[in-house]
Amino acid sequence: MPYINIKITDENVTTEQKQALIQGTTQLMVDVLNKDPATTFVVIDEVNLDNWGIGYEQVTQLRKKKAGNN
Amino acid sequence: MPYINIKITDENVTTEQKQALIQGTTQLMVDVLNKDPATTFVVIDEVNLDNWGIGYEQVTQLRKKKAGNN
Amino acid sequence: MPYINIKITDENVTTEQKQALIQGTTQLMVDVLNKDPATTFVVIDEVNLDNWGIGYEQVTQLRKKKAGNN
Amino acid sequence: MPYINIKITDENVTTEQKQALIQGTTQLMVDVLNKDPATTFVVIDEVNLDNWGIGYEQVTQLRKKKAGNN
Amino acid sequence: MPYINIKITDENVTTEQKQALIQGTTQLMVDVLNKDPATTFVVIDEVNLDNWGIGYEQVTQLRKKKAGNN
Amino acid sequence: MPYINIKITDENVTTEQKQALIQGTTQLMVDVLNKDPATTFVVIDEVNLDNWGIGYEQVTQLRKKKAGNN
Repeated sequence: MPYINIKITDENVTTEQKQALIQGTTQLMVDVLNKDPATTFVVIDEVNLDNWGIGYEQVTQLRKKKAGNN
Repeated sequence: MPYINIKITDENVTTEQKQALIQGTTQLMVDVLNKDPATTFVVIDEVNLDNWGIGYEQVTQLRKKKAGNN
Repeated sequence: MPYINIKITDENVTTEQKQALIQGTTQLMVDVLNKDPATTFVVIDEVNLDNWGIGYEQVTQLRKKKAGNN
Repeated sequence: MPYINIKITDENVTTEQKQALIQGTTQLMVDVLNKDPATTFVVIDEVNLDNWGIGYEQVTQLRKKKAGNN
Repeated sequence: MPYINIKITDENVTTEQKQALIQGTTQLMVDVLNKDPATTFVVIDEVNLDNWGIGYEQVTQLRKKKAGNN
Repeated sequence: MPYINIKITDENVTTEQKQALIQGTTQLMVDVLNKDPATTFVVIDEVNLDNWGIGYEQVTQLRKKKAGNN
């Protein structure tokens, strides 16, 4: 009966990538904990870059700085 | 002071249905736990079908299979 | 496939009350949204009174003030 | 390593306000708990007014009532 | 910068199993999304069987029924 | 009506520190967003070091390594 919530930044994640995250985490529950996949939920939240902060800064700003360094 | 978070798939949930979920869960807190409705929060998250997985699969795929069976 | 998370203060909630919360919220998903109860999860978190704040104060303090007023 | 999730109603919150929330909560983790800001995450969720309930009612309705009183 | 929250029932999960869940989900973020493991958080919540409901019932009851069938 | 959830490792956080986190985040909601403190909730989750991973590792292991370096 696991419930897995994955929060990632909203940066063009494809349907195939989401499917891979769902399959991979569900398989992990089966392999490690012997859980039933039929009652394993995975919910992915894609978060706007303005709404995610790390090290005092919005990811929006971090991405700009990184781009500026190239 | 309860806080209730309801996560459901984003499939044309109406304002009336949301209101019914809010009233019903709040009433449950009052009836079962004698909580004060004035400080009972209900937050509903509607999740894209691509972002919800169950049994290794995205709900998007499950809905297609079900439709194909009819 | 709803997932409902109920956060309440940890104040001697009984097994019967928890069961009533699980039954009531699950029934609401069935009645309002026509969801399948077999894939409806309810998770209850009981939070220590020191760890819940409202109006700048820990619930621990609010309970003491209320008791002092009687 | 703190993780802070802020849920607020979706009412024209500006980038500057989000930045202030991120800086303020991160600083609080540093000042109160001596945490490393480099591994302090802040995630802000903006919730539709129809999807947030308090006191049995959607915030949408509360805002209308308040406006009607003026 | 992913944040992954895994909720499972509290049933004697070992430190090795927790470590396997952390490694597996982190590796998935690296493999599927090219994320930096240094800023990938995994938080595991172990939930009391009385506090988790599925299909109207507490997991405590489901486990008893299953044991009774053997 | 904000709801703030703070997840930190369970490492002897004092009541005074929790109170400071509650007051600080509530004040931030008032200062930055003009929110009403009477309906601002703060919930603190203290997470066991075995249950928090970062960079593929449990915090339990990271703390041991750090201690070993001294």
